[in-house]
Amino acid sequence: MSRTAVREAVRLLSAKGLTVSRPKIGTRVRPTVDWNMLDPDVLRWQIDQQPDEEFIHALFEMREIIEPAAAARAAERATEDEIRALALAMEGIQAEPRGSDSQIDADIDFHMIILEASRNPMLRSLGAMIRSTLEITFTLGWRIMANDAVLQHREIYEAIAGRDSDGAFLAMRRLLRNSKGDVFDALWMRRNESEPTS
Amino acid sequence: MSRTAVREAVRLLSAKGLTVSRPKIGTRVRPTVDWNMLDPDVLRWQIDQQPDEEFIHALFEMREIIEPAAAARAAERATEDEIRALALAMEGIQAEPRGSDSQIDADIDFHMIILEASRNPMLRSLGAMIRSTLEITFTLGWRIMANDAVLQHREIYEAIAGRDSDGAFLAMRRLLRNSKGDVFDALWMRRNESEPTS
Repeated sequence: MSRTAVREAVRLLSAKGLTVSRPKIGTRVRPTVDWNMLDPDVLRWQIDQQPDEEFIHALFEMREIIEPAAAARAAERATEDEIRALALAMEGIQAEPRGSDSQIDADIDFHMIILEASRNPMLRSLGAMIRSTLEITFTLGWRIMANDAVLQHREIYEAIAGRDSDGAFLAMRRLLRNSKGDVFDALWMRRNESEPTS
Repeated sequence: MSRTAVREAVRLLSAKGLTVSRPKIGTRVRPTVDWNMLDPDVLRWQIDQQPDEEFIHALFEMREIIEPAAAARAAERATEDEIRALALAMEGIQAEPRGSDSQIDADIDFHMIILEASRNPMLRSLGAMIRSTLEITFTLGWRIMANDAVLQHREIYEAIAGRDSDGAFLAMRRLLRNSKGDVFDALWMRRNESEPTS
């Protein structure tokens, strides 16, 4: 590795706040609790390293705090264009082959449109974090969307299109609770597959 | 201004994702909706420029989504050390002179300890955003904490110390709703003061 490459890497880690450099002391790694877990890169590095269950629990906990609230606001504030975009994403989820990249893209679009339609700039800025969480979910091996999940996306869509903010909140919460269960099932199966049979 | 200073500034704006540079095209400012509003610097620049009411509404909306949920988790998960730290912050809020820097510091500590005690790394990472929101609140001229607010901080503390997660959720929500009202009152008074009397 060239010295320039190392210097560039150290500069990036420092810009992301993972390390701190002081004259005469040198560069130190900051404690993990000080890392900005909302930065999509930092999030990805954390998960690539060890997608431990506690961290996945925390990701879903965060989504369950953010996304039902965003769906409720989207029901009040989405523009007609956004509702049409949501309908398109919904169609993709239903019509594209289960587990295909195009279905997964439609799924990610669906969640991003809702954050966008919440009209809150801070909620919108959490989009990158939620996108990463979704991508991670799919790389964990859980790519096949259950029938239930397709239906639950439709319920969210219908509540938002019908301007039913409580309905949108509850439908999003149902979807997230189920999909959390699916991810943990996938993790459990994966762990059992990789264990040697005695 | 030296060329180096300008270059440094442009590099910072680009690292924060506010501008994008392309060969042969040059540096362009990205649309505001793409800015990362969770970055404390970006947030501060946005507010220094024009603390418009819509943006302050959005900040409080975000706090109302995050902080009651964090308080509920803190009631379940706070360590004994964190509960002691919260008690100390509470004492500062009650005992320090109204509107003094030391009371404001105690207030900020109070909210940061709760996010920390939620044990969720993503919630914790929102601390910087919430700290900025609080600092902005105080610079808007609303420095004198109402009697109600002191009482409401105590209710939050007692719910967390008593491991009452629903109580902590509701008490935090009450505090935020009231303090939003106080901030808008301050804004209203300020606007009326600065208008010429006809």
